[in-house]
Amino acid sequence: MKSQSPPPAPSQIEIIPLRSLPEISRGDDLALLVTEAVAREKTGLQPGDVCVLAQKIVSKAEGQLVCLREVTPSPLARSWARIRREDPRFIEVVLRESSRVVRMTERAFLAETRHGFVCANAGVDRSNIPGKEWVSCLPADPDASARRFVRRVRQLTGVSVGAIISDTFGRAWRLGQANVAIGASGIEVIRDLRGGKDRYGHSLRSTMLAVADELAAAAGLVMGKSEQIPAVIVRGHRSARAHGSARELIRPPAEDLFR
Amino acid sequence: MKSQSPPPAPSQIEIIPLRSLPEISRGDDLALLVTEAVAREKTGLQPGDVCVLAQKIVSKAEGQLVCLREVTPSPLARSWARIRREDPRFIEVVLRESSRVVRMTERAFLAETRHGFVCANAGVDRSNIPGKEWVSCLPADPDASARRFVRRVRQLTGVSVGAIISDTFGRAWRLGQANVAIGASGIEVIRDLRGGKDRYGHSLRSTMLAVADELAAAAGLVMGKSEQIPAVIVRGHRSARAHGSARELIRPPAEDLFR
Repeated sequence: MKSQSPPPAPSQIEIIPLRSLPEISRGDDLALLVTEAVAREKTGLQPGDVCVLAQKIVSKAEGQLVCLREVTPSPLARSWARIRREDPRFIEVVLRESSRVVRMTERAFLAETRHGFVCANAGVDRSNIPGKEWVSCLPADPDASARRFVRRVRQLTGVSVGAIISDTFGRAWRLGQANVAIGASGIEVIRDLRGGKDRYGHSLRSTMLAVADELAAAAGLVMGKSEQIPAVIVRGHRSARAHGSARELIRPPAEDLFR
Repeated sequence: MKSQSPPPAPSQIEIIPLRSLPEISRGDDLALLVTEAVAREKTGLQPGDVCVLAQKIVSKAEGQLVCLREVTPSPLARSWARIRREDPRFIEVVLRESSRVVRMTERAFLAETRHGFVCANAGVDRSNIPGKEWVSCLPADPDASARRFVRRVRQLTGVSVGAIISDTFGRAWRLGQANVAIGASGIEVIRDLRGGKDRYGHSLRSTMLAVADELAAAAGLVMGKSEQIPAVIVRGHRSARAHGSARELIRPPAEDLFR
């Protein structure tokens, strides 16, 4: 939901890494584990806090791991794996997770996922998973994952937080990956300033701010590295409370010049 | 400069908006005004703080404003202005600031700037400038602007800070603008993890983290809105100190699939 409310006064923001989350396994109650960690770390949770969860722990908790031993690669996966020098079973999972191929080159495989996100390998990834024969896929519905997390935290603590499921995506034109939102709940995802004026009465340049992606990027500063911090609290971000969805961040294909 | 040093332990980060910067004019000493503002606001400056400065105040201080009354539009600018329903003199400035046109459609003009950045209108912008007939262009060398700022802050206060010149850019595939780094000094711009391993011994997925863009995005959370906060201190970001350049963030055209 895009907010038309006047912007609140900017306040100081804190980005707090959670250091004591245990290893996550299928079926784990992430909200419970996060509330236990914030209690242990004496961080607590405050209304309006935004909990940013790395995709990897959400996928693990939801069982979105695939064992490569159970994957039979298609002819396309086998021929493409030779070009990429990859495990054909890995490529097969990537193809299954893709709804459309955006670019297929020797160096990169860029696909649209069923959610509509454009990213490398359709979000399939083998890092930070115990066991050599397993890969992780994106959560089936990351917005729903975020909504469940928000609801469960409220049930456990009485506190209304926002939540973002984040992943690191590469970008066109710019080198390096940055953390972005692939799921969201309880936050304003895009701040729509269309029609707004600056203090001189001119139309604003930045008319739609990707707030959820900036929140994810801020969390990425402490998550980054080898992903040893998979959950982060962003505190002090004042925004209109909204039942936003990360799907708002997907540029409609008809308006997209690079799909 | 890309760092190969082991990642430091993640710490809490604070994003501190500077609220009391005066209106910036050509020739202003931004470093002096920022150090005065942090003193007034009892924020101070600490070693390792990263000062994120909105492009607009840097362009104003450096006199990168163009008066449209002095611009004569070319035939291309005039015909394109009719299609875009824009002031042909504005389009003329945009074309002059472009080194290459990436996309020219009814809705969008996407260009490569002389720095190598790909962005809408080659970074030319009319918001947040007093006077109706003026537009702002990107700083001539934003890395040099950042370097001068860092040097001058050290001279004034004895404190070694990092600096980022930021601007809000749109993205391929994702809606909304996000704040990114167009100039940098005294910080690690990209964290290069190629060859790194996760805790299970697998290769890392995110091999190059666009740290400077994540810092800019974090600052964007308090800058955003109508750009009333053009300077932000990011405190607690532990990173290898490096003489990084925002040009590291430009994907080499030969590797870029969307240029």
